[in-house]
This record gives sequence, C-alpha cells and structure tokens, in this order.
Amino acid sequence: MWTVGNPGRDPFGAEVRPIAKPTHLVKKLAECGAWGVNLHDNDLVPFGASASERDRIVADFKAALEDCGMVVPMATTNLFSHPIFKDGAFTANDPEVRAFALQKTMDAIDLGVELGAKIYVFWGGREGTEADACRDPRSAIARMRDSIDYLCEYVKDQRYDLVFALEAKPNEPRGDMYFPTTGHMLHFISTLANETMVGVNPEVAHENMSGLSFVHAVAQAMEAGKLFHIDLNAQKIGRYDQDLRFGSEDVKQAFLLVRLLEGTLGGERYEGPRHFDSHAYRTEDEEGVWEFARGSMRTYKILAARARAFDADPEVRGLLAAKGNGAVAELARGYTRDKAARLRKLQPDVAALGSRGLGYEKLDQLMMEHILGVRT
Amino acid sequence: MWTVGNPGRDPFGAEVRPIAKPTHLVKKLAECGAWGVNLHDNDLVPFGASASERDRIVADFKAALEDCGMVVPMATTNLFSHPIFKDGAFTANDPEVRAFALQKTMDAIDLGVELGAKIYVFWGGREGTEADACRDPRSAIARMRDSIDYLCEYVKDQRYDLVFALEAKPNEPRGDMYFPTTGHMLHFISTLANETMVGVNPEVAHENMSGLSFVHAVAQAMEAGKLFHIDLNAQKIGRYDQDLRFGSEDVKQAFLLVRLLEGTLGGERYEGPRHFDSHAYRTEDEEGVWEFARGSMRTYKILAARARAFDADPEVRGLLAAKGNGAVAELARGYTRDKAARLRKLQPDVAALGSRGLGYEKLDQLMMEHILGVRT
Amino acid sequence: MWTVGNPGRDPFGAEVRPIAKPTHLVKKLAECGAWGVNLHDNDLVPFGASASERDRIVADFKAALEDCGMVVPMATTNLFSHPIFKDGAFTANDPEVRAFALQKTMDAIDLGVELGAKIYVFWGGREGTEADACRDPRSAIARMRDSIDYLCEYVKDQRYDLVFALEAKPNEPRGDMYFPTTGHMLHFISTLANETMVGVNPEVAHENMSGLSFVHAVAQAMEAGKLFHIDLNAQKIGRYDQDLRFGSEDVKQAFLLVRLLEGTLGGERYEGPRHFDSHAYRTEDEEGVWEFARGSMRTYKILAARARAFDADPEVRGLLAAKGNGAVAELARGYTRDKAARLRKLQPDVAALGSRGLGYEKLDQLMMEHILGVRT
Amino acid sequence: MWTVGNPGRDPFGAEVRPIAKPTHLVKKLAECGAWGVNLHDNDLVPFGASASERDRIVADFKAALEDCGMVVPMATTNLFSHPIFKDGAFTANDPEVRAFALQKTMDAIDLGVELGAKIYVFWGGREGTEADACRDPRSAIARMRDSIDYLCEYVKDQRYDLVFALEAKPNEPRGDMYFPTTGHMLHFISTLANETMVGVNPEVAHENMSGLSFVHAVAQAMEAGKLFHIDLNAQKIGRYDQDLRFGSEDVKQAFLLVRLLEGTLGGERYEGPRHFDSHAYRTEDEEGVWEFARGSMRTYKILAARARAFDADPEVRGLLAAKGNGAVAELARGYTRDKAARLRKLQPDVAALGSRGLGYEKLDQLMMEHILGVRT
Repeated sequence: MWTVGNPGRDPFGAEVRPIAKPTHLVKKLAECGAWGVNLHDNDLVPFGASASERDRIVADFKAALEDCGMVVPMATTNLFSHPIFKDGAFTANDPEVRAFALQKTMDAIDLGVELGAKIYVFWGGREGTEADACRDPRSAIARMRDSIDYLCEYVKDQRYDLVFALEAKPNEPRGDMYFPTTGHMLHFISTLANETMVGVNPEVAHENMSGLSFVHAVAQAMEAGKLFHIDLNAQKIGRYDQDLRFGSEDVKQAFLLVRLLEGTLGGERYEGPRHFDSHAYRTEDEEGVWEFARGSMRTYKILAARARAFDADPEVRGLLAAKGNGAVAELARGYTRDKAARLRKLQPDVAALGSRGLGYEKLDQLMMEHILGVRT
Repeated sequence: MWTVGNPGRDPFGAEVRPIAKPTHLVKKLAECGAWGVNLHDNDLVPFGASASERDRIVADFKAALEDCGMVVPMATTNLFSHPIFKDGAFTANDPEVRAFALQKTMDAIDLGVELGAKIYVFWGGREGTEADACRDPRSAIARMRDSIDYLCEYVKDQRYDLVFALEAKPNEPRGDMYFPTTGHMLHFISTLANETMVGVNPEVAHENMSGLSFVHAVAQAMEAGKLFHIDLNAQKIGRYDQDLRFGSEDVKQAFLLVRLLEGTLGGERYEGPRHFDSHAYRTEDEEGVWEFARGSMRTYKILAARARAFDADPEVRGLLAAKGNGAVAELARGYTRDKAARLRKLQPDVAALGSRGLGYEKLDQLMMEHILGVRT
Repeated sequence: MWTVGNPGRDPFGAEVRPIAKPTHLVKKLAECGAWGVNLHDNDLVPFGASASERDRIVADFKAALEDCGMVVPMATTNLFSHPIFKDGAFTANDPEVRAFALQKTMDAIDLGVELGAKIYVFWGGREGTEADACRDPRSAIARMRDSIDYLCEYVKDQRYDLVFALEAKPNEPRGDMYFPTTGHMLHFISTLANETMVGVNPEVAHENMSGLSFVHAVAQAMEAGKLFHIDLNAQKIGRYDQDLRFGSEDVKQAFLLVRLLEGTLGGERYEGPRHFDSHAYRTEDEEGVWEFARGSMRTYKILAARARAFDADPEVRGLLAAKGNGAVAELARGYTRDKAARLRKLQPDVAALGSRGLGYEKLDQLMMEHILGVRT
Repeated sequence: MWTVGNPGRDPFGAEVRPIAKPTHLVKKLAECGAWGVNLHDNDLVPFGASASERDRIVADFKAALEDCGMVVPMATTNLFSHPIFKDGAFTANDPEVRAFALQKTMDAIDLGVELGAKIYVFWGGREGTEADACRDPRSAIARMRDSIDYLCEYVKDQRYDLVFALEAKPNEPRGDMYFPTTGHMLHFISTLANETMVGVNPEVAHENMSGLSFVHAVAQAMEAGKLFHIDLNAQKIGRYDQDLRFGSEDVKQAFLLVRLLEGTLGGERYEGPRHFDSHAYRTEDEEGVWEFARGSMRTYKILAARARAFDADPEVRGLLAAKGNGAVAELARGYTRDKAARLRKLQPDVAALGSRGLGYEKLDQLMMEHILGVRT
C-alpha cells in the first residue's frame, strides 16, 4: 500500500500523483502477479475515523481482496505520522502518548487479524532523538520492552495466531533511532519475556544507509531462527531513505541476498514473505508505478536463476569445496580437557598456510560474470 | 601498548617513530597518571618467540610493572597481523587455521592471567569478507560461537578469574566484518552457552565509522549488564579507522558518553576500566605521543565535570522533570486483561498532545553552553 | 523564512506547527536581533498568485520590513516544490520546463530587487537524477551554463545591482545532484561567460552530508574571491538533510569555520551575510522555534570570542610561528631556470626533517580546551 | 606497478606476497594483454639510490619494456611514503620540505620522460590535515598553486612533451585532504597560470568514498576538456580506500562510466588511457593477482558491449528520444532582450507538465536488464 500508493511527496516537494483508493490498488497488484498486500492501519482507515466509517471501509476492502484472490499476510500500525508521536510512541516521555500508542496498536492488531494477517510488523518511526539529553537511553529501551511484552500478552490473551516482526532503522526521520540495526534489534528481542513470538523484519535500505552488510544481517537473523519477514528495496550508502526498486542499486549484494534467501548455497531456504517495500521515483505517473512494481519482481526472479546457475557451476563448486582436515576440525569444536591438550600439540605449517592463495579474486569474478549473464 | 607504542605506519607510509620497548612504555604511562596498561600478546612477546625468550620477556615486564605500581587489567590476542589469519581466525574456512587461533588464544589467556588480567578482549580483525561468496555467513557465525564457547570452557576448566569482552567493527581491514556493531555482538552473546561470562568492549571509533550513535549502543550494553570494558577514542563518520585522541571529534557525543558512564544523569555508573585506545597523529614524535595521552585523560575529566554541572543545573532539571500521569503509566505497563480494557477507554487529547512544544531546542542549547563552558 | 517559518513536515509526518504569516515572522526576527530576512519567491507569494494579489502581498511585506527596520539581503526562487520541476528546472529534458524556470526566476529576481536584495541565490533542488541514463550529464552541465549566463545577461540588461550565489548539494531530494559540492560549483562558475558576477553560497549541512571538510571548501571559495553568501547550520555526516541549529553538531568544525570567517587566524575576514538556514526540531512549538533562532546566533558569538582568544594565546602563537628558511621558500616559488638549478642543489637533512615532531596533538588539544572554555 | 606489485600489507597486517621485481611485472603484464605500465618513481628506483644505481635500474627496465613491446604512458612521484612528507609535500609548512618535494618531482619528471611518459600524475597523498589549526587552508591552496605552476614552467623550459593530471582524494591517509574531489581539483586548475597543460585524473574509489557520483564528476571533466587520465577500480561508499577490482562493486555505476567513456550514448569518446589502479585482495597469492588483473579488463569489455547494446536498443531509444519544442529551446538559450520578452509571454500548461510521467523506472529497469544480460 505504502509502496504502490505513494504519491511522491518529499520534504522539498508536493505530491505528483493522485492518491489511489485502496480497493483500486488491490486490483492492480493482483494483475501484476502479487499474491498479497501489506498495510498500515491508516493506509486503509484514516486517522480519527468513526467506528461505522471504519467498518464500511474494511468491508469494501475485504470484498476487493476476495474478488482478486489476494491476502493480507502482514499488517502494521502507523506510529509516526501524527504530531502526537513527534517524540516517539512507545518510548515517549509522556505516559499518555505511550498509552495512546498501545491503544492504537491493539486496534490495528484487531484490524490486521480481521484481514487475515499472520505477521505484525513494528517500525518505530519516531523512537529516537535529536536532542539526546531529553531522556536516558536506557529508559527508552526499558519502555520499548514493556510495550512489546504488553502487546505480546494481548495477542496471547486474544488467542490470535500472530507473530511480531521488528524493523530497525538507523535514522530518518529522527536524528538517531533506538535499535538502529537488525543486530541491535535481535539483541533487544533476546531480552523479551515473550522472545519466541518475536522476530525481525530487516529492510535492505535501512541496513544499507549505515553501510553495513545486509546479507550478513539477514544471515544472523536466519541462523537464530528470527527472520519472520523481509523488506526488499534498494538504497545507496549514507543517504536519505531512498526506497528504490529492488535490484536497482548494488546488484551484487542483491544477488547474494537472493542466493541466501533461496537457499542455493546450501543451508535453509527462507520460507516467509518477500515484501517489496519501496516507492517509484517522483518522476513517474501511475503507469511508471506499475513498471516499478513489475521490475522489482522481475529482477528478483532473474537473480534467483543466476544464483542457481552460480551454485551449480563446477568451477565455483571446485573453488568452494571444503578443504581441510576433519580430525582437526573435531578438536577445535566442543571443548574437553583432552581435546584442548591434543589441539595445543598440533604444529601447523604457519608459513605455508599464510602464503597459500585462496582464489577469491577468481571466485568473485566468476560471480560477477554469472550476474552479468556471460556464463549462463 | 598499541596506543602509545604505535610507530605511525599506515597503508601509504613508513614508520615515523622508533618502536619503544614495552618496559619503557610502562614507565612513561605511569608518569602520565595511568593505573594500568593493556596489551596484545605480540605487543610483548614477538610472534614465534621460543619458550625461554617468552619467559625472560615476561619476567622483565612484570618487574617493570611492579616498579611502577601498574597493573594489566586487560589482555588480548593478535589474531589479525600474521598472513595465516588473512581470511579470518575463528571463522576461517580451514580448520587448521581455526585450531591455530585457539592455540594462540589459550597461550595468550595464560599470559594475560599470569600478568593479572581480569578481562580478556576479542577483536576479530580478520573475521569477515570481501568476496562474500567464499562462505555461508551462517557458518561463520556458528564457527565463532563454537570458538568462544570453547574458550569459555577452557577458562572455567582452568578456574581462571576472567571474563571475555567482544569488540565489534564494521569494516577495515576486511570489506565487511561479521558482527559489525555492538548490537550484533550483543545478540551473538545471547546465543552462547556461556553467555554470563561474556560481555562487550565497544569502541567509539568502530561505532562511529557506521554513523551509529555510540551512546545508544553503550546504553543498550549497560542496560543488559554487558558493558565489561570500553575503548575511548574519536573518529569521523564514514572514514578509515582514525583512532583519534578522545574528545577531539564530536565533543557533544563525547560529553553524552561521559555523562552516561559517570552516571550523572541518574542510573548506574559504569565501574569498569576506561581504556584510551587510539594513536597519535603521524606528525608527532615521542613527546607528541605523550601530549596525546595526557590530552585524552584531561578531556575526559573536563567533560565529567561539565556533565555534573549540567545535570545539577536547575534550568536543565526543570526541562527534564518527569511530567505525566502516573496512573496512566501504570496502565501501560504489565499487561492484564483488565488494565488493557481500561487503557482502551482512555481518551487523550490527541490534538493538544501533538501541538505542545517539548523544549528540546532549549535543552540542547543549554547542553552546548555547558560544554562550551559558558554556564559553569 | 524557510528557517523560522518551517512547520515541521517531513517524509514520514504531517505539520506540527501552524504556518505563520510572513509579516509576523519579520517582526519576531527583528525581536531576536536579526538585521535581515531572506526568502524564496513562494515563501511570500504563493505559486500561481495573480498579479494584483502579488502586489498586495508585497506591499504589506515591505511595510512590515520598514516598521521593523529589517532588510532583505538575499532572495531566491523555489524551483523544486512544484511537480513541473520533478526532473529538474534548468537541466530538465523538456525545453518548456527550462523556459518556465527562466520565466519564474526572472519574476523572482524582479521581486528580490524590489525588496532590496543584493544577492540572488540559486539552489537547484531538482537538478539531478536517480535513473542516470535519462540524459547525458554533459548536456545537463551545458544547460545549466546556458541558463545562468542567460540570467546574468538579464540582470545586466536591467542594470540591477545584483550578484548570484550558487549553492551545491550532493543529494536529496534527488539521488545524485549535479555540481554536488562547492568545489564542483566553483569549477562550473569558472566556465561561465559572466564569471565575475557569480560566486557560491556554501551550506554547512550540504558539504557535511558527504563528509567533506566544510572549512576547506569555504577557504577555497574565499581564496578565489567567490564567497558571496553562506548558510550556517549543522548536520551529521552521511544522513538525510538535517538542517540543525548552528553549532549543535561538530563544534570543532564550527569553531574553525567561525575563526576563518572572522579572520582571527590572519587573512581576510568574510564581510558578507551570515545566514542561518536551518529549522527547529519537529518536537518544538513556536516558542521552541525562537529558542532555536536565538541559540544559533548565541553559539556563533561564543565561538567568535573563543577564536579570538585562541589566536591570541601565546602558547598557540608559539606553535604556529612560521619556522623555516626564507631563502629556500624564495627558491621554491616563481620558477626561473636559475632558481630551479639552485633548488636542485640543496641537500636537506631528510632524516632529521622526517623524525622531527610537529606538536599538532598539543595544538589540537589547546584548541579543544579553548572551545571547552577552560583557557579563557 | 603499485597495482600488480602490491604485497598486501595493510594497517593491521604484514605482507602476504613477496615483492616482485619491476622487470618481472612488466613481462607478466604484457602476457595479460596490457599495452602499458605506469609507475611511481620509487616503484622503480628506491628512495635514496645513488645516481649509478638509478641508471643501472633504469637501463634494465627499459630493456624489459622493449622486449615486451610495452610503453610507460604515465609516471608519477611518491610524495607520501617517506616521513619527511608526513605533513604534506607542496603544502608543508616548512619550505625545506616543499623544496625537497620540487627536487624529487623534477627528478621523477626527468625519469618519466626518459621512459616515454606523456602524462604526469600528481596525487598529493599527504596534502591535508588532522589538526586543522596548523595552517590557514588558504595558504595550502596558494602553496599548491605555486608548486604546480613552478613545475609547469619547468616542463615548458625543458620542452618536454608532457601534461599534468591531478588526482583528488577526500581523506586517508590524512583526516581531510585539500581538493577532496574532482570538482575541487577542476576549480583549482582553473586558477593556474598554466591551466591548459593541466587536467585531472579521477579515480573511481576516491570519488565513491564520499558517496558522490563518479560518472557526473568524469562528465564534468570531459565537458571541460580536462579528462587527461582515469583510474579504474571499485569501492564501497564511506569506507577506507579499498582499491577493489574494477566492476566488482556498483556495477550500475561501472556500466554508466564505461558508456560515457566509450561514447555510446553520443557525445565524445574518451581517447586517453584507461588505467586499472587497484590491488588484489590480501587473501591472494601471485596467481590471484593475475586473475584480478585479467578480471578488471574482462569486466570492462563486457560492460562496453552491454553499453553498445543498450544504446542501440529501440525501446531505449524511444524512451530517450528528444521531446520538446525546438522554438522554445531557442528562446531559452542565448539571452537577448527580445528573446526574454517573448519567453516571458509563454504560457506552458504547468499542470500537464507536472502530472506527466517520464518513464524513468522503465528506462532504469531496461538498463538493469541489459547489465544482467537478459536483453542481449
């Protein structure tokens, strides 16, 4: 919704596209081949709508979904646009703001569940600071924990079939946001009372803004069983949040990401939703918006095919084949006093191990040539 | 050792200062008012030294420490300089390299304990990639976990009084390093079998390289009881690892950090070592190195005094005074069905809460004026 | 206008402050001690206003200026908000857009001159690309040159007493903007037919976004006689355009800047306007906006006093005193065959020159202590 | 030389490869298909070598070149490794250092010319600061101008057939370097007495470090007739100087660059040398170094073919076809009073121009698909 319904407003300019009706967007998305649509509460129901308005809008929307055979796999709350959240929602200093954020989220969870969502995303768009003296950051962390645990209990109490996915971002719209990376968020989750029902929703652009490896972050989440949802787009390092078309920047990282998600390098495949969370350039009209949506999906598929070919390439397999002494590997894993004693007696040929070449320039060049389509 | 003994070599130029003897450095540090000295194994004992050489060097060094009344609070292993580690130590693909890294670390732990160290730092200078296809990042994470758990067991088995502090860095010397931020490292620790004996050693420069808030990262570690050690220096965002004199860049963040560590904003004070991990400009001779060491400590003390004055300033206290309804705060914490029902009936004045000003420009300007010394 | 009238809208949220009338802002600015007010055409006269509306608004505004004894030293055109400029104004592919941009600018120049402006600023907010294949960047450069030269001729033809100041920005709202730094802009100016009437308007935030030294950029402009105007604010490196209160980030660079502008280090003082181009945090109400305006000016004055004290400090003067052989300096400047022959015979003591310490750690620490107010 | 002879030393680790003899490198480069080799003076002749040593080394090297049919298109001076240059060469405060830098450069120019070089590159690796108070940046600029003009006069006086190409870098090894981008350098050149014989040598990595568009910088240099030489490699934004294999990062920018240099988008083709200035990963042995050299050249050729195909694609040509009114274009270029009067009477349909879509998502996606090799 946020993605294809985005009217192209930015800090320096007005809307360039009319705001489309949600039911229209559902139809168009279905035509593009999408199977689902995600939404913020206020993408559908305007802030402050009455109960009857809300019910009418929701009914129309459900009908449109049914017509198109679409589902709502994920829902979320907008806790960042309204001025009441200008200094945070769950971490705000004023308890009235925190209480209102909980209210709004419980309502939005009810709405999401009504629409069939199984995953609930939290992006704390205003949870941060510019004037850092305004609060002890440890209080902000504690308040966030209180709030997420509160909402976990609510979901359990309602017997909803719903998990949470938390989304990190380093900055923008706040100067510095709490839990700025997927790593910080994963750690935060490990401190929750209801840790098992909470995972992460990493976003390419958010991790790239800080110049960190998105692939490593996703791998860390997968390794911990915490990748519940993923937001695919593109972004240059060290810039405003660009939310570009997936694959349109840093195609090498995009390839490595698809390879990881699709499981072609071995290891488990990611089975959750692949969500394209981005928006078309402000130069586009509605036709351009759909070009953009189709382009995102098309590039994903091309890269998936390339990843399969790369991992099946005998030259690549040769370079990646496990070398090394299995007995030594055993000594270096699972400490016992005896293993340690034996390990300390090993006398590896340090000079030979140091001067040996690893063939990574060749490997990386092979990968580039697969990406460029000259080896398929 | 790394700090004051640094000879000023860089990728584009040769040494500018002679390499000083460790015993000389200990004496000079004592004169500067330092109470302790930290070291890498190879700062003291050269790579490949024989057992007898090692013993002689260590004996001399212990004598120098005793003469000066200095201690070695922290020790660490150099797992990054020798070519054998060029593709990682604990995460290397070759089990022989991983085994050698464990060997070297167990030796270095023995040395550290012999010198009296209570904290053992791990900085995995080569644990990362440029050619990311070379290994599944999930394997790297698993191998790191195996290694740290192995070494935890070794320490327990030896009944050493020693804890581990893991240090994150986003890149340099590798293109992308695993566990690139303190957040990622905190999460990794939460997955260890021996989680309680492992914390973090955040470094100003390493977090700043990615443009993340160092203060927030340290706060997250403190809130989780995981700040075991800290490396103080300075760094501009988005640059090579500069390791500048503490307080010489981003003095506002330095102030906020000192305020957090000293506990003047309330909350717990950090009681562990404050380690200045940086090196003098390459333009300096030995005298300049000691100016640099003294400057780091001096700025820390000035900022600590400023933090006390800021948090005692009645105008600041007025701006920071907790506002807000305690009963509402209670409803928003510790879910019960009844609390949630009552919370959902609250009708906060959303418009009023949104249009109210929070006084943060004034607060931040007051802070700047304390830093600039015009309100003391 | 843009600065104090900013209602706090951003890409993720709605306005938090009412939009004030220009005449009100003029009064308030005068109370704060400002001597002038700068404006975009559409800050005063709405886009698409009729001629009679325009005349009425301008008359009211001139009366307000006169009442308060304020002037309009600088004016500019908004060539970025309206969708017609979504792919650039002077560099747009469509000549109708370029023609409209010239029209609008000529009208705005007339307005600026009517209000008494002596400097006309150009910030090409949309002159850039995301999809770089859309035009040859060399065409964009040539079109920009055609447009600026056209407008120079217009000013000369009208016998206006007006110079142009061009403002660079690396990105946002476009992915990459043409002439992304003050350096690129200075070079562009050197290629104009009317080079002498065109200078630069560097902005702290815009240069900092790329992590470049703002002080060096301003120095390069001053050395070339091209610093016509300056925009003072604050910004962290590698982030969205923050437009923070002057001096609230990187106070060391702010100090060095004020020192350069005020001429305390020797060299010429900058005599043009010091313009605070920033906006208050979105957490503020109107009172906070004025705190922010006063804070900017106050910090500038504090730093100016500190710069004077630093440059008068005998210890600093000692460290900075020119060392070195004047006769050698003469040989190395102003080539003649004879000088070169004599220069090549010199035999400097290379080892001694290399091992000598330069005292820069001490110098920088002294500077920090002046900034922190412990040496005044 | 710097490229293929690099032994893999970095700030955190020792050499991993033996240092090869220059004559060996020449032979290997010839085998890879290179036509020329560039060098620093001290890549060939060690610092401080006697005149007879120098002559012997040069004679051997010339013989090796002749044997292999290789040329030396470009030469340069190392003004950054030796401690004497630790605070700059041409901008150093001490005139003796400046004089020595001129000496060394005149010798190196003589050597370069003897080897047949037609282009002389200047990279001022130490021309910058960490402690910015150490000198007025305007003096640094003036000293650099004096030096380059001096050397221009020397070349003219010797009647050498040689031009200069200046290379910018934002930081590393210095905290901030003067003339940090190609834009700043182009402006500096415009202020030289001998402007016509001086151009730029932009390097992918150096511009990318600041996150600026390398393609726009190269275009600005080409448009001004100042692209004399180019250094091709790859780099992630906001990191230490990586000097990666050309095309191995940001393949989209690499494509756009090759397209610009090869002239397939129209406009002039760049006819000067394409120099691969990078070094192999530290994980490689000598075989890996040659893989890396071959990979750079191979990727360049693949992208050149893709650029031709993209610019010949009818769908692309359709999207890029010049639209717009030629008569209007004429009015907007080349000011006359009459043209301006007529231009001001135009009444473009602002709303229609604003709501029109530009098709850039489609264009960019087509470009990605050409890069990925699915449209060839």
